Amino acid sequence: MKAIVVKPPKPGVEIKDVEFKEDKLSTVGLVKIRILENGICGTDREIVNGKRTSVKPPAGKDELILGHEAIGVVESGGYGLKEGELVMPINKRGCGKCLNCLIGRPDFCETGEGLVAGTRGLDGFMREYLYDDPRYLVKIPPSIRDIAILAQPLADLEKSIESILITQRRIPIWTCEDGTYNCRNALVIGTGPTGILFSLLLRSYGFQVWISNRRELLDNEKAILDEPGINFYNSANGYEKLVTAEGKFDLIIDTSGSSASIIQQLVPLLKNNGILGLFGFPRYDSFSLDYKTIQDFVINNRVILGLDNGQKPHFQQALIHLASWKSLWPKTASMLITKTVSINNAEEVIRSLKEKAPGEIKVKIVWD
Amino acid sequence: MKAIVVKPPKPGVEIKDVEFKEDKLSTVGLVKIRILENGICGTDREIVNGKRTSVKPPAGKDELILGHEAIGVVESGGYGLKEGELVMPINKRGCGKCLNCLIGRPDFCETGEGLVAGTRGLDGFMREYLYDDPRYLVKIPPSIRDIAILAQPLADLEKSIESILITQRRIPIWTCEDGTYNCRNALVIGTGPTGILFSLLLRSYGFQVWISNRRELLDNEKAILDEPGINFYNSANGYEKLVTAEGKFDLIIDTSGSSASIIQQLVPLLKNNGILGLFGFPRYDSFSLDYKTIQDFVINNRVILGLDNGQKPHFQQALIHLASWKSLWPKTASMLITKTVSINNAEEVIRSLKEKAPGEIKVKIVWD
Amino acid sequence: MKAIVVKPPKPGVEIKDVEFKEDKLSTVGLVKIRILENGICGTDREIVNGKRTSVKPPAGKDELILGHEAIGVVESGGYGLKEGELVMPINKRGCGKCLNCLIGRPDFCETGEGLVAGTRGLDGFMREYLYDDPRYLVKIPPSIRDIAILAQPLADLEKSIESILITQRRIPIWTCEDGTYNCRNALVIGTGPTGILFSLLLRSYGFQVWISNRRELLDNEKAILDEPGINFYNSANGYEKLVTAEGKFDLIIDTSGSSASIIQQLVPLLKNNGILGLFGFPRYDSFSLDYKTIQDFVINNRVILGLDNGQKPHFQQALIHLASWKSLWPKTASMLITKTVSINNAEEVIRSLKEKAPGEIKVKIVWD
Amino acid sequence: MKAIVVKPPKPGVEIKDVEFKEDKLSTVGLVKIRILENGICGTDREIVNGKRTSVKPPAGKDELILGHEAIGVVESGGYGLKEGELVMPINKRGCGKCLNCLIGRPDFCETGEGLVAGTRGLDGFMREYLYDDPRYLVKIPPSIRDIAILAQPLADLEKSIESILITQRRIPIWTCEDGTYNCRNALVIGTGPTGILFSLLLRSYGFQVWISNRRELLDNEKAILDEPGINFYNSANGYEKLVTAEGKFDLIIDTSGSSASIIQQLVPLLKNNGILGLFGFPRYDSFSLDYKTIQDFVINNRVILGLDNGQKPHFQQALIHLASWKSLWPKTASMLITKTVSINNAEEVIRSLKEKAPGEIKVKIVWD
Repeated sequence: MKAIVVKPPKPGVEIKDVEFKEDKLSTVGLVKIRILENGICGTDREIVNGKRTSVKPPAGKDELILGHEAIGVVESGGYGLKEGELVMPINKRGCGKCLNCLIGRPDFCETGEGLVAGTRGLDGFMREYLYDDPRYLVKIPPSIRDIAILAQPLADLEKSIESILITQRRIPIWTCEDGTYNCRNALVIGTGPTGILFSLLLRSYGFQVWISNRRELLDNEKAILDEPGINFYNSANGYEKLVTAEGKFDLIIDTSGSSASIIQQLVPLLKNNGILGLFGFPRYDSFSLDYKTIQDFVINNRVILGLDNGQKPHFQQALIHLASWKSLWPKTASMLITKTVSINNAEEVIRSLKEKAPGEIKVKIVWD
Repeated sequence: MKAIVVKPPKPGVEIKDVEFKEDKLSTVGLVKIRILENGICGTDREIVNGKRTSVKPPAGKDELILGHEAIGVVESGGYGLKEGELVMPINKRGCGKCLNCLIGRPDFCETGEGLVAGTRGLDGFMREYLYDDPRYLVKIPPSIRDIAILAQPLADLEKSIESILITQRRIPIWTCEDGTYNCRNALVIGTGPTGILFSLLLRSYGFQVWISNRRELLDNEKAILDEPGINFYNSANGYEKLVTAEGKFDLIIDTSGSSASIIQQLVPLLKNNGILGLFGFPRYDSFSLDYKTIQDFVINNRVILGLDNGQKPHFQQALIHLASWKSLWPKTASMLITKTVSINNAEEVIRSLKEKAPGEIKVKIVWD
Repeated sequence: MKAIVVKPPKPGVEIKDVEFKEDKLSTVGLVKIRILENGICGTDREIVNGKRTSVKPPAGKDELILGHEAIGVVESGGYGLKEGELVMPINKRGCGKCLNCLIGRPDFCETGEGLVAGTRGLDGFMREYLYDDPRYLVKIPPSIRDIAILAQPLADLEKSIESILITQRRIPIWTCEDGTYNCRNALVIGTGPTGILFSLLLRSYGFQVWISNRRELLDNEKAILDEPGINFYNSANGYEKLVTAEGKFDLIIDTSGSSASIIQQLVPLLKNNGILGLFGFPRYDSFSLDYKTIQDFVINNRVILGLDNGQKPHFQQALIHLASWKSLWPKTASMLITKTVSINNAEEVIRSLKEKAPGEIKVKIVWD
Repeated sequence: MKAIVVKPPKPGVEIKDVEFKEDKLSTVGLVKIRILENGICGTDREIVNGKRTSVKPPAGKDELILGHEAIGVVESGGYGLKEGELVMPINKRGCGKCLNCLIGRPDFCETGEGLVAGTRGLDGFMREYLYDDPRYLVKIPPSIRDIAILAQPLADLEKSIESILITQRRIPIWTCEDGTYNCRNALVIGTGPTGILFSLLLRSYGFQVWISNRRELLDNEKAILDEPGINFYNSANGYEKLVTAEGKFDLIIDTSGSSASIIQQLVPLLKNNGILGLFGFPRYDSFSLDYKTIQDFVINNRVILGLDNGQKPHFQQALIHLASWKSLWPKTASMLITKTVSINNAEEVIRSLKEKAPGEIKVKIVWD
């Protein structure tokens, strides 16, 4: 079958014929899936461009099938799935050892030995066919198929907000005088796909949301943020003006994924009891906090929280939110998939895997 | 202004002119609202038919404006609300004394002295105009206005499922092997509006759902339950066949609101660690449990939980779910409002307030 | 080796020689333990008197070694335990199938297939020697050995109060104006060992506590309740006077273990948001609640909660509380072990296994 | 009346006569208390030595009565307190504005406007008499009066561990295979009073505990750590040897209160899902983390948590733990108060307020 293949850590990617084999990961049984579409994510591009060092092909191989965002159709059902149903495979798989993996939550794996499709020890989803375990398959409602590919990246954010809200339960009351989060304000750093999806999600949870970047918004970004009422701030000259106008923040999420030094700008922007969620992977540099900032951090019960990927419950929650956005913010929802490329247009697929277009939110590869 | 008025405990209802006054309930400020539509609920009919004993007009009055489900438009804004925005007033208001009311959660009022619009000590929402406190107003997204009136009854169920899931946290693991609730089964008793909305909501949370009544489903009920994959069981001859086929249940919700005796049929249907939520108000009779059933209840960590009305965070959550249903189950969503009556058609309004039509889910009164 | 043996469902008990064998329950390894003392509990007496129907010897046997409360000394260590250390074996063992058992919490077993030493499918602890898995052994601090046998019955109550407090988290605020439980009142039904231990534990959690029985207190019971400031109420003529004087209750625990009918007296004594915990096993009769009481239960967010046995974390928590009671309430602590019998005094052992003495809290059998 | 008085930010302290006045802080009523004893804490010494910049006398004054650890006796009771009862006043008082302060939890004050006795805007407890609000008074059991003064510093740690355990609930399972924390390891930095009390508390919660300092233990410190089985590590040459021998840590608490740079040594010592609690106030320097360490922090769901002072529920929980330690670790408990000074020995009182003696855990000033 056809597949999109990389040879990490070497840069490069090719579309080629590979053998179709079972991955030996099933605890329940295997279901055959024909892939209909894949999403391209920043991680894929880092691999393709040879910039991600931690990528590993399956044991004993030097090639890795790329891709961790996919929708497929069940070709031969069983184990609760019927032929013709749409499914999304989950990328993170359990280590088989720690308690969290045993109860279906490898997103909190303790051993670090879990496999991740398309990046760590397990072939990814950019291929014609897949055998997979129903335990790791999420049903996709056909009525929202157009944007359902976003359930994978959004699942990570669903898990993140779950982690944030549980962490904030250490505070007896973090809701407002009306029992909601409407008085809480959040600042999201970065206007890439993650920053935008996080902003939308925080609106769904009732937060007031500011999103920032060190440049002005592009037109399509502006349009996407309009319906949900998300505020934009250009941070090219720092955050001083924002804080003067809006005050400090209850919640700050860094999705910027560039310099680590941004963290030292963000910590002092937290309100009492505030929380800084680190989602993006900083790519260079470091940050530094002096003792006075730390004193302030300690005395005011603040938190810095690492936020990583979601699991099946978060994929399902993401589908609910995506479905709600289609109704609530139809214009926004219609602008989230910025390009669709046919797998038959190899040149364009390869180009899309190498470079991000300006204003891109999500590019889909379609297998016809 | 025009209003729909009752004189409890006397049966009867009339549409008449009343003076437009502020209710002195504000802590923040008052916003003027013109009512656009009201929903009719079973409680309204009980009041109109003189069958609800606990209804009370505002202090010093013998008349009560009916109605606790409404959507209005802001006529003169302020306090975070703008002219032209759609809002839904919340029916339950705090007692001003207990801690839960102070923090915006009168749904857990301890004193029992909170007022409830349209039923207890406070005029309801079936009237041309209203002044209200923004703290008790929920913004309604225009894009889902057609079904948004359901946010009020659905809010009660959002609060119910929140209470249920928190109660189940006493069990270290109540999720399934894949981290979801997909292996958990729920039985909802009653196919009235509450039963149907609860079933839809439980589907959104990932449960397998059975709904039951002591008769076959009407055609429209059948159609509503189809898209979301809700199973129906006719319980005219008891639950034995259901248990033989499907086993016992993790979660049972009684929304039947008729004989209390049903509870003694339901308790033995609970699995270990199972929970019985009582939502409906039984209207007559009693139930009885013998010592052996209680032993079983005790040794297997079971729960019976009273489930009452929701507050602002639950209204907001209900709007998200309603929006998601419009996308996920468009046919179902389009069948939830079963009738719309103009306030100018007085005869039909009065009839709708007295009798429930077969297959009715929600009737709206529209103020043009 | 010597052991105390029953042949359920026949009444009777004998001290006899049995073969010393491993029970095949280990997941980690086995540690040899010499039993030093056993506690006698009401369940033991029910078995001995042929009144408990659910007792089962190990598979393929018709004899069962009695006893689920024991302290022993490690004879040959390993797996984190050293020779000479004191340990208490835990009675409830996992089913090996459900997630709760896999993560060490068979107290919430879903399959009901777990074994319980001394009562269900597994030999108990009234014997000279035992091999056991360290996973099911709790270290006993020598400094509180005199009352440490109470850690087994107290563990059940630690788990109970954990379940109660988690269930009450559905209420945004259940603490008082000073952040404690000091304004919350609890009523404990029954002055047997469980009722007394539950009252002490509720005092440790800061509750105001009333304990009730249908007779006056014996002198030793009165003395035990004095230091911790527990109030007594004689309920021979019902609870009306108590409610008149003290109001309704936030928390009621039934430990009476006699007629099920008491439950219908207790439900109406609950405050709004109140919780009724059923701990004792009712032995006969039934209870009945009419529709009005249920309406009240529903509208005021009340709960009835089945409370069953504790697991290793609860045993450890029980030891902390027992240690604290020795310091805080030394007189009370010194009166909790009401009798000690040598295993060599067979006649007295048998008598103690058949009859409860008036005022008995806990009887210990000592193996010299 | 006599009082110990400072004039911040000037160094110096004197024992002098001051007028006895009510502080206008009561919401309930005032109770007159005669102080029996005070504890001296590191913060007191910083104030006395002019090294703490954030200290503020009550509004309109330039003098501040020192002291935030005290036990007194009720001289004229009321509001639930009786003459002769022992009480401990709580140092942190609500701002009267935010929801957390309204519900009795100023330890999570949002406005930062709450007062703190002896340090921020409110006279402290080193004086003959006090009027106080029962809401801020904790009853002290006479049976543990000898060490009860430790309830104040220990309350901060009770609140800290509560915050830590709630934060860790974002992980589905953080308990071990036996349901306890016995497999989790904690590293406490610093062997001052806070480090030692935190280590003892973590033992009570079932953790394996390592405590470290950059020097060898003094004899009394060694003796204190012996009974509870706390391991010591000399970190003069870094933590490499510790990690080689014991692996990384689930929980790290910094109580060192010296250089901020230690944080960059500690973050890489965390296991997956691990948590670093910052309790001590770093006094100089800064720390820095590079992008690789942050990537690791993010992908493995780690947390850095600010830990501040406790409130009334934590004082009560601290008393339970202190009482349990008296029974479980009697030798340790007897060594926690390292010196007692009479208020009449002014010279020694002043000296103790200026300098910490080697091996000091807690010094008490006694008012006879």
